[in-house]
Amino acid sequence: MIVVMRSGATREQIDAILARLGEHGLTGKITYGEERNIIGVVGAAIPPTLREEIELFPGVQEAVRITRPYKLTAREFHPHDTVVHVRGIPVGQSPCVVIAGPCAVESEEQIVRTAQAVRDAGGTMLRGGAFKPRSSPYTFRGLGEEGLKLLALAREMTGLPIVTEVMTPTDVALVARYADVLQIGARNMQNYQLLEEVGRSGVPVLLKRGLSATFEEWLLSAEYIVAQGNEQVILCERGIRTFETATRNTMDLNIIALAKRRTHLPVLADPSHGTGKWYLVPPLALASLAAGADGVIIEVHPDPDRATSDGAQSLNPANFAALMPRLSAVAQAIGRSLAVPTTIEA
Amino acid sequence: MIVVMRSGATREQIDAILARLGEHGLTGKITYGEERNIIGVVGAAIPPTLREEIELFPGVQEAVRITRPYKLTAREFHPHDTVVHVRGIPVGQSPCVVIAGPCAVESEEQIVRTAQAVRDAGGTMLRGGAFKPRSSPYTFRGLGEEGLKLLALAREMTGLPIVTEVMTPTDVALVARYADVLQIGARNMQNYQLLEEVGRSGVPVLLKRGLSATFEEWLLSAEYIVAQGNEQVILCERGIRTFETATRNTMDLNIIALAKRRTHLPVLADPSHGTGKWYLVPPLALASLAAGADGVIIEVHPDPDRATSDGAQSLNPANFAALMPRLSAVAQAIGRSLAVPTTIEA
Amino acid sequence: MIVVMRSGATREQIDAILARLGEHGLTGKITYGEERNIIGVVGAAIPPTLREEIELFPGVQEAVRITRPYKLTAREFHPHDTVVHVRGIPVGQSPCVVIAGPCAVESEEQIVRTAQAVRDAGGTMLRGGAFKPRSSPYTFRGLGEEGLKLLALAREMTGLPIVTEVMTPTDVALVARYADVLQIGARNMQNYQLLEEVGRSGVPVLLKRGLSATFEEWLLSAEYIVAQGNEQVILCERGIRTFETATRNTMDLNIIALAKRRTHLPVLADPSHGTGKWYLVPPLALASLAAGADGVIIEVHPDPDRATSDGAQSLNPANFAALMPRLSAVAQAIGRSLAVPTTIEA
Amino acid sequence: MIVVMRSGATREQIDAILARLGEHGLTGKITYGEERNIIGVVGAAIPPTLREEIELFPGVQEAVRITRPYKLTAREFHPHDTVVHVRGIPVGQSPCVVIAGPCAVESEEQIVRTAQAVRDAGGTMLRGGAFKPRSSPYTFRGLGEEGLKLLALAREMTGLPIVTEVMTPTDVALVARYADVLQIGARNMQNYQLLEEVGRSGVPVLLKRGLSATFEEWLLSAEYIVAQGNEQVILCERGIRTFETATRNTMDLNIIALAKRRTHLPVLADPSHGTGKWYLVPPLALASLAAGADGVIIEVHPDPDRATSDGAQSLNPANFAALMPRLSAVAQAIGRSLAVPTTIEA
Repeated sequence: MIVVMRSGATREQIDAILARLGEHGLTGKITYGEERNIIGVVGAAIPPTLREEIELFPGVQEAVRITRPYKLTAREFHPHDTVVHVRGIPVGQSPCVVIAGPCAVESEEQIVRTAQAVRDAGGTMLRGGAFKPRSSPYTFRGLGEEGLKLLALAREMTGLPIVTEVMTPTDVALVARYADVLQIGARNMQNYQLLEEVGRSGVPVLLKRGLSATFEEWLLSAEYIVAQGNEQVILCERGIRTFETATRNTMDLNIIALAKRRTHLPVLADPSHGTGKWYLVPPLALASLAAGADGVIIEVHPDPDRATSDGAQSLNPANFAALMPRLSAVAQAIGRSLAVPTTIEA
Repeated sequence: MIVVMRSGATREQIDAILARLGEHGLTGKITYGEERNIIGVVGAAIPPTLREEIELFPGVQEAVRITRPYKLTAREFHPHDTVVHVRGIPVGQSPCVVIAGPCAVESEEQIVRTAQAVRDAGGTMLRGGAFKPRSSPYTFRGLGEEGLKLLALAREMTGLPIVTEVMTPTDVALVARYADVLQIGARNMQNYQLLEEVGRSGVPVLLKRGLSATFEEWLLSAEYIVAQGNEQVILCERGIRTFETATRNTMDLNIIALAKRRTHLPVLADPSHGTGKWYLVPPLALASLAAGADGVIIEVHPDPDRATSDGAQSLNPANFAALMPRLSAVAQAIGRSLAVPTTIEA
Repeated sequence: MIVVMRSGATREQIDAILARLGEHGLTGKITYGEERNIIGVVGAAIPPTLREEIELFPGVQEAVRITRPYKLTAREFHPHDTVVHVRGIPVGQSPCVVIAGPCAVESEEQIVRTAQAVRDAGGTMLRGGAFKPRSSPYTFRGLGEEGLKLLALAREMTGLPIVTEVMTPTDVALVARYADVLQIGARNMQNYQLLEEVGRSGVPVLLKRGLSATFEEWLLSAEYIVAQGNEQVILCERGIRTFETATRNTMDLNIIALAKRRTHLPVLADPSHGTGKWYLVPPLALASLAAGADGVIIEVHPDPDRATSDGAQSLNPANFAALMPRLSAVAQAIGRSLAVPTTIEA
Repeated sequence: MIVVMRSGATREQIDAILARLGEHGLTGKITYGEERNIIGVVGAAIPPTLREEIELFPGVQEAVRITRPYKLTAREFHPHDTVVHVRGIPVGQSPCVVIAGPCAVESEEQIVRTAQAVRDAGGTMLRGGAFKPRSSPYTFRGLGEEGLKLLALAREMTGLPIVTEVMTPTDVALVARYADVLQIGARNMQNYQLLEEVGRSGVPVLLKRGLSATFEEWLLSAEYIVAQGNEQVILCERGIRTFETATRNTMDLNIIALAKRRTHLPVLADPSHGTGKWYLVPPLALASLAAGADGVIIEVHPDPDRATSDGAQSLNPANFAALMPRLSAVAQAIGRSLAVPTTIEA
């Protein structure tokens, strides 16, 4: 950390800071400048709140943190890519994964039809919500455990691993009995008890970025999970909230490219939530792969205009099938490929 | 709801929409325009997802919702101000309340000293966190139940009611045994299981606005609580996330004035989180009352530069005491007053 | 336009609105709903400020505009793609263009070396600023006309057409004497006198999106140019301002895909300003083409660490040359190609 | 400036940076830390682009600027409040000013009636636009010089000084012949030629904050004006663009309180544009004074529902008259007063 003093700061003010640093077992090294002096803080363990603490001292203009607050998720300390294994499918290696399915599980017929369509088109995993977070208390919130059972049935019939959301710590054990990947939704990115509980579960986790989460906050949330011993974390960018209202959210592909540099965890993109309009999903899915995403997660519904939620951003099976070879072409253009679905474990 | 057709939309496309409306028990009334036609949707219960559903029909340019999605919290359906009663202190009437205390409960001495300082300066309630949500897993997260006991002790000694945060549904019963007001933090504004659990508790709730929550989403979260039968909900604006980095957040006083028109619930302001800088807290606290807030919640710490969290935005007792008569003067200038602390129930 | 009345609105209130509509030569058609009534406004020419005007009438909840305010730039009224021709190079057809060069023209050696590097790598046009908008009055603001002459020299030597910025209406004639494309920078997107002046010039215009401009505002600014009779307008997305500070701006690729649907004008992407970091430029350039952009504009500098501006986001010639075949591969993957540079006109 | 090296940075990498600093006449002082080393840059004149330049060197994690880029406008170098004098009315002293009038000058009757109403209610200056920036080319853009003449007539009849916008450098001389204060609108905050031209005019300037301008960018724009020798600059916060759509903009009162600390220039608030809704103007005007603004600028129109622009956010004369004593009461509550209008200069 660097402490920048105001131009007229006194020797006494500097000494007070050096003394406080000493209380923390730290040393301050002073650089005398023409306009102002600075103190470089040296020591093994700088407390996370030291910056705020020092900024309250008289004579201080600002204190600047110079190290990143996330450690276990940082590529700096873990240079090799983490690969998350989901029923034999690697996420984070050269082949890109395509996870697809409806926003919510609605019925056996709906989820099985969708799963088969996803499978037939070459999708790698099945997504579908049994527990749904909804802004309004008056909308459909999912089938609960019944939905999980239908997902398991669809997996049995198609071999596709299941990605599904868990919303509250006490449901983790239940959802983990059915799911291959536990999804943490954008609204829960900073639900720390939930993060720690999925961390303890040991099951692969798909961590969506919060609607207004900075890159750093997103990695710190991943850090919560990894700190519990679960390194099987997949990041997922799904659009952020900006001033623009012409689309539901603004997909931040910058952050996908940045994440591939700064962290070793795999990164997916969700163009369905990222755009909110089904006709923007194909171009943004292609763009996500080109930007370096390790795969995409796409909403597919057999009959989008009768979906209980997110119909406006869902592809129908025909549009999804048409997208798959285009995704494959872009993946190859950047030297990757699409992951091949596993065979059914019968 | 209004369905706006594209300019070249056909009669068949309109008929398809009328048929679908009929399936929902609704009627469509057509207005023929010079450039395009519109369909007005008439009926008692318009499904929340109808807009998305209809927008997928061919020939539709857009569907526009014309009713607000929140009901129980809307002033339109409940014209009189709701007053929340906290140990005999009314929140939402003419006198404004001042809630003050440290970000986190750290020790008996710290919380008792702060409570006495708050009380002596004329504060109405004591705030303090026993369970703290923190972005990083490596920072202090509160004393837990021990912190709740210390809050109760401070209440016993000063008579000040207690406002404290609850972070997860399974903790609601525990926190409610000690707290007079259950605080839902900004990160949990859309933690729906938690909202329903505090709704069932019947205890007054302070609902902070999420960092990037729209006004409508905030009221819908309040709606979750009220829908469980708990009308004792106090809204609290605490700054939103914008592009501006010169302050920690951007306080949105527009929304306080708007909330007083659109909802009957009381509305407080939190200038400590709203600004992130202790020297901006007094002017923004004064501004909040002038904008119509029913009170303020302010971080006060006996020794801000040794606080375990949020020291940079905490007032020390002297600054807090100096602020109180200024708050009183502004309250009187707009025809209100400051609430008087209750006497100790001995 | 639709006028939504409050639930208790009276017949007199509706009549007052109908009368005002009559003053404007418009008709109002009423749809009676169960909860509230609405008025559909019918007529040829709805004044742009009618919405605000009507919302002030008693009994009105809100007035909702249902037509888009841009006309000449809308695909609805002009279904075929506009192709802008720059010295024989078409922009907006299947081949994608690559415009490259330094942020600012600094010297003859610098611009000629860069132009040759761009040309050798297969770039289609040369960019470079002679007039530079800078946040601080204390930074380099360009060589002025001397810079334009150097650009013309570089064009003579390489055959690459020139794209350069014009900042104020009185400079348009001067810059147009040298430039093949007049660039309007993000800060000037709503400098209406400037837009009209470049509209009158008849020279092709590259219109960058403002830092916080909505899609609609961007198209309205293009409308200003086209309304002067100049249809040779190229849109350019260059990143928007959001809460995220890990990158300089947030590239909004959603809007590129949306623009290709809603307008007939060509759309480029500027990943240099969009990311602010040279190492993010290649993945975002690839992503832009995959999202449907008609080309990219990229900052290239022979010696980025000695650039007078934007060094941090400039590629050096080697990195640019390495990117070109990757851009070509992605263009082909989506069924397009890269435009071939023209031969030198000698 | 501080240069933070990566953990494994080599001695050669540090030496390369020291050498480059030497080329600029600067010195680097190294602090060796446990995890990484830092270089403090010492010297009189650090080039504005040094940060970007140094960040491109191998081994550098980041370079952090520690001085603020604005100088002439900084309170640090100019501790006493600047007072701007407008026809004998001081702006920036204890009495707060109230500037009021229509968005646009529409007719003699309209501007004279409004000026008289403003004067009668105790307003200090008259605002009104003769040149109007409008998002759409199809809306009313002001009466031009005819509007300026009507403003001068209204001034003659009421004694109120005139505040009016100038949009392009070549109009500055014309507008300055009539105006007492030249307003720079939000869209032109970074129109640097215009800033320099009003700087050279010597006339007082009201500089509105751009829709998405940071505090620092706003002060740098003021710096452009002051650097031309014109210190008569009044800052004006008028709402920023955020994700919230329930109000037109989000007023940022944090920044008003911050500006009073960081700069010596007077700061006003514009709650009309800041909220976009006439019924939110009174509470936000009161809040602005409470936050420390040196005055407010308010849209008043004799017949808001027939205004050519901004009718929805204009007060009618009765509402404005009712607001004035409330503003006075809040001003007094914080130890200030409202400025008294000057007598007519006859």
